Amino acid sequence: MAEYPVLIDGKWRPAKAASTFQAVNPATGERLPGTYPVSTWDDCDAALSAAAAAFNELRRTPPESIARFLVRFAERLEARKAQLVEQANLETALPASPRLADVELPRTTGQLRQAADAALEGSWALPTIDTKNQIRSCFEPIGPVVVFGPNNFPFAFNGAAGGDFAAAIATGNPVIAKGHPLHPGTSRMLAEEAFAASTECGLPAATVQLIYKIDHQSGQRLVSDPRVGASAFTGSRTGGLALKTAADRVGKPIYLEMSSINPVIMLPGALAERGGKVAADFSSSSLLGGGQFCTSPGLVLLFAGDTAEQFIDDVRKAFESAPTPALLSSAVAKGLSESVTTLRGAGAALATADAPAAPGCRYPNTLLRVSGQAFLERPEQLQTEAFGSTALCVVVRDAGEAEAVLSHLEGNLTGGIYSDTGGRDEALYARLEPILRQKVGRLLNDKMPTGVAVSPAMNHGGPFPATGHPGFTAVGIPASLRRFAMLCCYDNVREHRLPPALRDETPNGRMWRVIDGRFTQASCIPTPT
Amino acid sequence: MAEYPVLIDGKWRPAKAASTFQAVNPATGERLPGTYPVSTWDDCDAALSAAAAAFNELRRTPPESIARFLVRFAERLEARKAQLVEQANLETALPASPRLADVELPRTTGQLRQAADAALEGSWALPTIDTKNQIRSCFEPIGPVVVFGPNNFPFAFNGAAGGDFAAAIATGNPVIAKGHPLHPGTSRMLAEEAFAASTECGLPAATVQLIYKIDHQSGQRLVSDPRVGASAFTGSRTGGLALKTAADRVGKPIYLEMSSINPVIMLPGALAERGGKVAADFSSSSLLGGGQFCTSPGLVLLFAGDTAEQFIDDVRKAFESAPTPALLSSAVAKGLSESVTTLRGAGAALATADAPAAPGCRYPNTLLRVSGQAFLERPEQLQTEAFGSTALCVVVRDAGEAEAVLSHLEGNLTGGIYSDTGGRDEALYARLEPILRQKVGRLLNDKMPTGVAVSPAMNHGGPFPATGHPGFTAVGIPASLRRFAMLCCYDNVREHRLPPALRDETPNGRMWRVIDGRFTQASCIPTPT
Repeated sequence: MAEYPVLIDGKWRPAKAASTFQAVNPATGERLPGTYPVSTWDDCDAALSAAAAAFNELRRTPPESIARFLVRFAERLEARKAQLVEQANLETALPASPRLADVELPRTTGQLRQAADAALEGSWALPTIDTKNQIRSCFEPIGPVVVFGPNNFPFAFNGAAGGDFAAAIATGNPVIAKGHPLHPGTSRMLAEEAFAASTECGLPAATVQLIYKIDHQSGQRLVSDPRVGASAFTGSRTGGLALKTAADRVGKPIYLEMSSINPVIMLPGALAERGGKVAADFSSSSLLGGGQFCTSPGLVLLFAGDTAEQFIDDVRKAFESAPTPALLSSAVAKGLSESVTTLRGAGAALATADAPAAPGCRYPNTLLRVSGQAFLERPEQLQTEAFGSTALCVVVRDAGEAEAVLSHLEGNLTGGIYSDTGGRDEALYARLEPILRQKVGRLLNDKMPTGVAVSPAMNHGGPFPATGHPGFTAVGIPASLRRFAMLCCYDNVREHRLPPALRDETPNGRMWRVIDGRFTQASCIPTPT
Repeated sequence: MAEYPVLIDGKWRPAKAASTFQAVNPATGERLPGTYPVSTWDDCDAALSAAAAAFNELRRTPPESIARFLVRFAERLEARKAQLVEQANLETALPASPRLADVELPRTTGQLRQAADAALEGSWALPTIDTKNQIRSCFEPIGPVVVFGPNNFPFAFNGAAGGDFAAAIATGNPVIAKGHPLHPGTSRMLAEEAFAASTECGLPAATVQLIYKIDHQSGQRLVSDPRVGASAFTGSRTGGLALKTAADRVGKPIYLEMSSINPVIMLPGALAERGGKVAADFSSSSLLGGGQFCTSPGLVLLFAGDTAEQFIDDVRKAFESAPTPALLSSAVAKGLSESVTTLRGAGAALATADAPAAPGCRYPNTLLRVSGQAFLERPEQLQTEAFGSTALCVVVRDAGEAEAVLSHLEGNLTGGIYSDTGGRDEALYARLEPILRQKVGRLLNDKMPTGVAVSPAMNHGGPFPATGHPGFTAVGIPASLRRFAMLCCYDNVREHRLPPALRDETPNGRMWRVIDGRFTQASCIPTPT
């Protein structure tokens, strides 16, 4: 069986491979056709050198060309939609429709187009001009970006097409995509379209590169190599922390999205008012995509009483009646089983029936419960992320115990509070919200966290260990672009030598700049017409 | 002799001290009166708990109160100016005038007032509103901030009054100031005024706290404690890296300003045109403050030839004729001596006379030179920071060698290029600027880097190891505030529960917010008048 090539320095060429691997169809457990290389450091090294050269070219490339590439790439993905969806479905078992075809792919092309607009418009760079001191600054591209894509979004977070890719490219950096080994065929097709689009638009040959799999040591060398500007990683905490240690040691920025149990507080008034609807919302959010969303609600805080018991029973029924999903891989199923064992070992009890172990990539939908008091005895183990269709109900006695539970939470991407619409929960909300607020990147009211709108106001980020830094977001343009930029100041630099964003005349009439303290789209000094 | 107290939780109280120390007058080598405690972890622990409580109060404190505090603090510093200047002069040997009284103190109070304006106005938080999706986000305070002040700016970078302090407070965080042990009396007086001002303005008792000295282990525990939001450190690379490792391990943001040799390229046309003036500029910048500026130009790149030799000779004369300054401490003098030894051992030759070792805190002004070729043999050693009045001239053969030298530079705060005013150096500029640009936070033309204007467009930052992340600046309001903030998103949150910055109505009519993609100072929805 022929081995698929890697994309390095503008060529699809055989990898310097240490070994090979195949993807598996999680729905059937069968190996999929196609052999992919596990690259050695040689491939990484070649990609880094090519990316460094491409970066020097990209810095001289006008944003119009970069935007054109992003749009053209989106168009090409739409043209190949049927094949992409089929491949991603085979490799992930995520439903072809609506999930892949109607939600994730449109989201991916939407992100590419939003990134194109942001590149063209230019306000992302926060250009700031001080005419009195003749000092000007803005964000500029940071250098080659390595993007490690996760297993759970084969399109929207793919290293060769997803949000990090779009942000890094829009900022003006080349990308080395490290595809996720669970869906190499999807990553290959995405990179094929990206490369074809970059060629059409005359971008440097190494603007987009792709490798499929490397060993841990090479990953750590990649993120800490002097030729790299920054890295982005979405995946497990173990993997993320190892890369973070390597990158931190040499001061290379790395943006991580690692783990999150997305706590949701159900205040008593909400359950009294609309408990059935809340339970239904929670169940479908928790089961969505096999519970394999970064923002899947995995911990729900309930106040002891009849409405809490009713909620648990409603969710139990929903979990038990929903089909057992095919997870992304047998490793995910195994990890989930281990997490449930940890949670149970720490004192959580099964609420759903003790179903027999499912074969291969499956694991039964599992609802667990624990008292607030028991949670507080083992808070660390009891917030173990159970990646898959699992949730833990923490039933607290009173507000004081709720405060204590919340105080023990680690950083999370999201946190939600459901409350009575008539205001009966207001005092409790005011007491608990400040604790939750400090622990999460996105706070929701009366809404489940699994929808992550690609909005300029979105924060898909949060305090450690959800991410590596609570000031950055992986979703939401233009803020996500600034992760891949460095702040560049020009002091007394002659006007013709300044980047267009910092010259007196507005580069495009649309860019918002801060000139002497005021945001404006106008030129710095009125220019003759 | 009585031991000075620490300021913890709103009380000047005796430290839980492991030992004590005294400050030394660098000009005379004599110990100064007053004994200061080396705090144990107990003091740090108490300060952290108090800061955590203060943070919860500060989050409910309106920006008007915080701004009033910053202004009142500035006024109190001005009222105590004579005593502050005298103390700082005794402890640092920096000239009382103009340096301390006429430059650094006004700069410090100016920073406090700019921070007050930024807190009041609020645009620093980049409030972003998406009305269609009902998602809103802005930056909010991150939690208690530990500020480690450096030895070289007793006022403007002091943990209890400087730029990091002002930024952390304006953002809404309490500060634990770790004063620099070389000027404990100055730090004490600053903290006295800060505390008095905070009491006057009704801020929480632990808004400002001060400890003078701790061991390394306690420092590392401080920056990685769960109660801490973030830390800021200005000082040596060794100290900064140890703190960075500790903070990184637990994902706590830490902002570092560690070391910089601030390369300056003298293009041949500039020297041909105005070599005498350029040499004079360089000499006075390099000798300013005993060469103990973070932005002191320590490496100058020259193109071999008569003008380069003339430049070196002019600078040599200036260095030799300038007085040998009293450095900040005998440790600084010793460190400088060691750095010069390293540079000479790596191939640099003395250009100034081989002066006899000066006593105590003094070290002769020292100009060194090395060829580009020799530099390229030991690039790492030859960019050793020599903190003090020392500079190294690197004389290159041609543009190719200049490119190679620049390519080997580490990250720096600043980099400068002097060129012919008539355009004769333009081709060389275009060739070298992109390499230098990627290595520095602030790029200058025909200007020395030692003036760091407190401008919104300033970047006092740069790639590692000058700092820990090239996207942040320690000087320049409002950008410096965002270091001490986390991105907080509100998804479907009821309007009355939103922070004022994100409600429909503009909180003050001045705050710039991005509403549906447009920067505006207006309300989100027209409110009835």
